[in-house]
Amino acid sequence: MSGLKTNPQVAVILVQPMYSGNLGSVARAMKNMGLAKLLLVNPTADPAHQDAKNMAVGAKDILQKAVYFNSLPAAIKDFQLVIGTSRRRRKLKRNWIDPKHMVALVRALPNKARAALVFGHEESGLSNEDLDVCHYVMEIPSHKNFPSLNLAAAVLLVAYELFTAEVKPQNYKPGLLPKISSGQLEEMFADLQQTLQSIDFFKGKNPLLMMRPLREIFQRAALSQKEIKIIRGICRKVRWVKAKLGSRP
Amino acid sequence: MSGLKTNPQVAVILVQPMYSGNLGSVARAMKNMGLAKLLLVNPTADPAHQDAKNMAVGAKDILQKAVYFNSLPAAIKDFQLVIGTSRRRRKLKRNWIDPKHMVALVRALPNKARAALVFGHEESGLSNEDLDVCHYVMEIPSHKNFPSLNLAAAVLLVAYELFTAEVKPQNYKPGLLPKISSGQLEEMFADLQQTLQSIDFFKGKNPLLMMRPLREIFQRAALSQKEIKIIRGICRKVRWVKAKLGSRP
Repeated sequence: MSGLKTNPQVAVILVQPMYSGNLGSVARAMKNMGLAKLLLVNPTADPAHQDAKNMAVGAKDILQKAVYFNSLPAAIKDFQLVIGTSRRRRKLKRNWIDPKHMVALVRALPNKARAALVFGHEESGLSNEDLDVCHYVMEIPSHKNFPSLNLAAAVLLVAYELFTAEVKPQNYKPGLLPKISSGQLEEMFADLQQTLQSIDFFKGKNPLLMMRPLREIFQRAALSQKEIKIIRGICRKVRWVKAKLGSRP
Repeated sequence: MSGLKTNPQVAVILVQPMYSGNLGSVARAMKNMGLAKLLLVNPTADPAHQDAKNMAVGAKDILQKAVYFNSLPAAIKDFQLVIGTSRRRRKLKRNWIDPKHMVALVRALPNKARAALVFGHEESGLSNEDLDVCHYVMEIPSHKNFPSLNLAAAVLLVAYELFTAEVKPQNYKPGLLPKISSGQLEEMFADLQQTLQSIDFFKGKNPLLMMRPLREIFQRAALSQKEIKIIRGICRKVRWVKAKLGSRP
């Protein structure tokens, strides 16, 4: 998928969504992540409701083009890969996968084959009968203390996994890490700014703008306590010299 | 971070959030992904508002414990790593990173050091002055046609990256992919069920339950057109035999 096209292979199916606002949030999440095709199975939520439009913001086109079905089997008829979502992994025997595995499956599909990602009712999720017609059932990772995701949140995370899979994974090295608190760093910047001001380094220009490249350098450089002291020592010295000069007759 | 603890190192800071409902959604997203500490800088949104509570669902505790500040520098004072979020990568010169790089930074922090993830106003984002005090600025990937993420969506994605980083990455192989449409597969299952019914294989038990292991097998096996025909041919044959038997005197 190139930067400006949407993903034509993957559709989102919502089974019996209840809240119109959620439809809007789902549409926004889809468009944020390059998905466009929305199928609705027996919705009680209404994509034309004001709540839906408010939450959709710039993704109202997805709501307008949503297609209706009166059963999940009817909705998935032309899809080659159907992946449901559920949190009942411990209870249900199914072909379980996680979102990254889903991405691998979708990306391995032939160009013309289509995949459907199926999400259930806000409170009860997908029924066992709905899950029966899914080739795979996906569990989205979440914290055991409070695993229940909002419908649009679930769609967003799954769509994000698909979207970011286009980017080649990098092996990030953390690089330099700050060794001191932001409060200490900000005190140093205040000191530095005051000092530069005192010697008229800014020459009437906006100090915030002039400070910015200095901030970048010191933020990136991960200063230690000792180094902070050195820089503030320099500042003090400069101000002292300036004061001496200023007091000259 | 173990399965049941929350992440004590990472806090979320919202600068001037406007909508109370968003506060609730942010709290839910945080708790879903094991974060607990919320800081608010000059919010116009109210964490005690009914909209906030409605959206928070089981995460109201995060709203109740939210801490207030009247400036971003005051809020970040005790943090060692401060990461802002913005979409103005092309316009602003900053130390830019993406969410996976953020995860690498946070995970490399010493145990007692704390990191803050900073999110701006719903419409205008973080100001240049807010970004000035951040060590790094993070851009969350989204589609060029409609990049603007909802505030809670941005928090969710970033928290999800942190949460799932605890899981060791796997090199997923897609495995077997379905070669036919779901419609064709469902027709085969209907055929199979009817056939098993006709020979009283279900013995009065729920056919849906009895069909489930068979579904799993055939869904996993990625049948071809030809294989579907073979199985349906067997079904037809079985029904024919049964019909013959049934017509005996």
